[in-house]
Amino acid sequence: MKKLAVVAFGGNALLRSDQKGNIDEQENNAYKASEHLLKLIKRRYNIVITHGNGPQVGNLMLSNTAGNKLYGLPEMPLDICVAYSQGFIGYILEQQLRNVLDSQDMSRDIITIITQVLVNKDDPAFKNPTKPVGPFYTKIEAEIISQETKAIFREDPRGRGWRKVVASPKPLVINNKKSIEKIARDGHIVIAVGGGGIPTFYAKENKLQGIDAVIDKDLASALLAAQINADKFFILTDVPKVCLNYNTPQEKSLERVTIAQAKKYLEEGQFAEGSMAPKIRAAINFVENSGKDTIITKSSHLGIDDGGTRIVMV
Amino acid sequence: MKKLAVVAFGGNALLRSDQKGNIDEQENNAYKASEHLLKLIKRRYNIVITHGNGPQVGNLMLSNTAGNKLYGLPEMPLDICVAYSQGFIGYILEQQLRNVLDSQDMSRDIITIITQVLVNKDDPAFKNPTKPVGPFYTKIEAEIISQETKAIFREDPRGRGWRKVVASPKPLVINNKKSIEKIARDGHIVIAVGGGGIPTFYAKENKLQGIDAVIDKDLASALLAAQINADKFFILTDVPKVCLNYNTPQEKSLERVTIAQAKKYLEEGQFAEGSMAPKIRAAINFVENSGKDTIITKSSHLGIDDGGTRIVMV
Repeated sequence: MKKLAVVAFGGNALLRSDQKGNIDEQENNAYKASEHLLKLIKRRYNIVITHGNGPQVGNLMLSNTAGNKLYGLPEMPLDICVAYSQGFIGYILEQQLRNVLDSQDMSRDIITIITQVLVNKDDPAFKNPTKPVGPFYTKIEAEIISQETKAIFREDPRGRGWRKVVASPKPLVINNKKSIEKIARDGHIVIAVGGGGIPTFYAKENKLQGIDAVIDKDLASALLAAQINADKFFILTDVPKVCLNYNTPQEKSLERVTIAQAKKYLEEGQFAEGSMAPKIRAAINFVENSGKDTIITKSSHLGIDDGGTRIVMV
Repeated sequence: MKKLAVVAFGGNALLRSDQKGNIDEQENNAYKASEHLLKLIKRRYNIVITHGNGPQVGNLMLSNTAGNKLYGLPEMPLDICVAYSQGFIGYILEQQLRNVLDSQDMSRDIITIITQVLVNKDDPAFKNPTKPVGPFYTKIEAEIISQETKAIFREDPRGRGWRKVVASPKPLVINNKKSIEKIARDGHIVIAVGGGGIPTFYAKENKLQGIDAVIDKDLASALLAAQINADKFFILTDVPKVCLNYNTPQEKSLERVTIAQAKKYLEEGQFAEGSMAPKIRAAINFVENSGKDTIITKSSHLGIDDGGTRIVMV
């Protein structure tokens, strides 16, 4: 039986922060990401792809605000913008991966599934928004938009500017997880849990309802990977390996990290919030819940031996 | 073995033309549509739901234009707006159908699949846009927007105002049709081919690419129904039965129509373009390709005996 891997792309795999985000750029990025994925597919893995949506959902939120101001269209809440972005990014990824597979005469269905993820309305995250979404602004721009829209902005830890932040509650249950596992184990490639999933909760009369939040896509992907019994979990980022003392003269890349070590490094503040820290937490979650390894690397190192940092139980 | 039904909701099942389109309205509409669907599910059908997206994709296109004007965001082509709308409408339908099933203690997975549909770039439709999308305008409003955006507007055949029209090429292949059939026959409810599917074509170097168009959702649904060997195809609209001499003193509702009769009525101009005519054509397509019946009715008549107009082979 083939092994099952969950591969989590960052939202920046499709839209880099130095790009404007037109459709040609995003299609080209998706094609390149798919070429890297091909190496893993050729190593005979069944694959579930997850992806971030930070830059895209930010643009969608802005468009939404603009449509309301200019044409009086109804404002859509954040869960709807996440649903938009799942449709959009899933489509582009699916199409470009199809093109890459076609170029190799490989026939596998690629199924993009819109995914809701259950959260708790009483999650403390709703009182303390931390998840950055959308484009970077100067401090002055951020202040103007904040006054206009009541959005909260925070400074990027890597000095790229100011960014809107929203609540990031803990993912509890991945909707349709059994079907996702079944479809992937049948040999199809599944794209799911886009942008960390559409956050929903049980409201009055036990009815499911969306909520204004963005779930961390690495945490949601780790939960999915554990819930579908994945054999390996890849978290993709823009560096080949996790580093200690990142961006200092003492920088040191890591090959293999136990979860005990990873927790210690987290406590020491080695990893930036909104960047590497949530990836490490997601890696720890998957390893603790499954006993299997998490690999953190960049997409061009997928399917290459020793091509990243391996987070392991012991 | 359970029978397989394809049920095509109109875009107005979620957003009526007398509504503004805020999220509460659309959720309530989806809940009501799901209650009607429940009657069919209880008659032991496996079900694939398809849906239109006219009002929603129109709003998304407008938001997109507004985001470009106000914040300089990149303009997204129509295929991307269709992908947005599939994510959005699929999510809302899935969530409200989940709530309806939960209220009956019925557990079935509901899987929303982003669906691409292949078209031919040389389809004559690209020279003659006919498919109405988005909100209704007065003639003067339409002229102003047309000058601003180069969009083409046409008057609604039922006198509701002026509406933007885009190319509506013929659907050729439903992507992932085998997986859609398999998942539905496994007992899950599938939501697919939203808005008629995301139109794609084979561009240079045989690469799949999106194209600026909207595929008629009834034609795409009929193609899907035939390609997955559905036993029944329901096309939902806002009247209980198809009528001859509609909206005149000679109006007469139809119980049972052969495809020969249906073709004759079409030739006589009995059915309005952009309204009943494409539904009749879709019905004929399914009956001709499958030998099975198509039922045209309103959603509240689903699962009721003799609750609509039956289009039959002979």
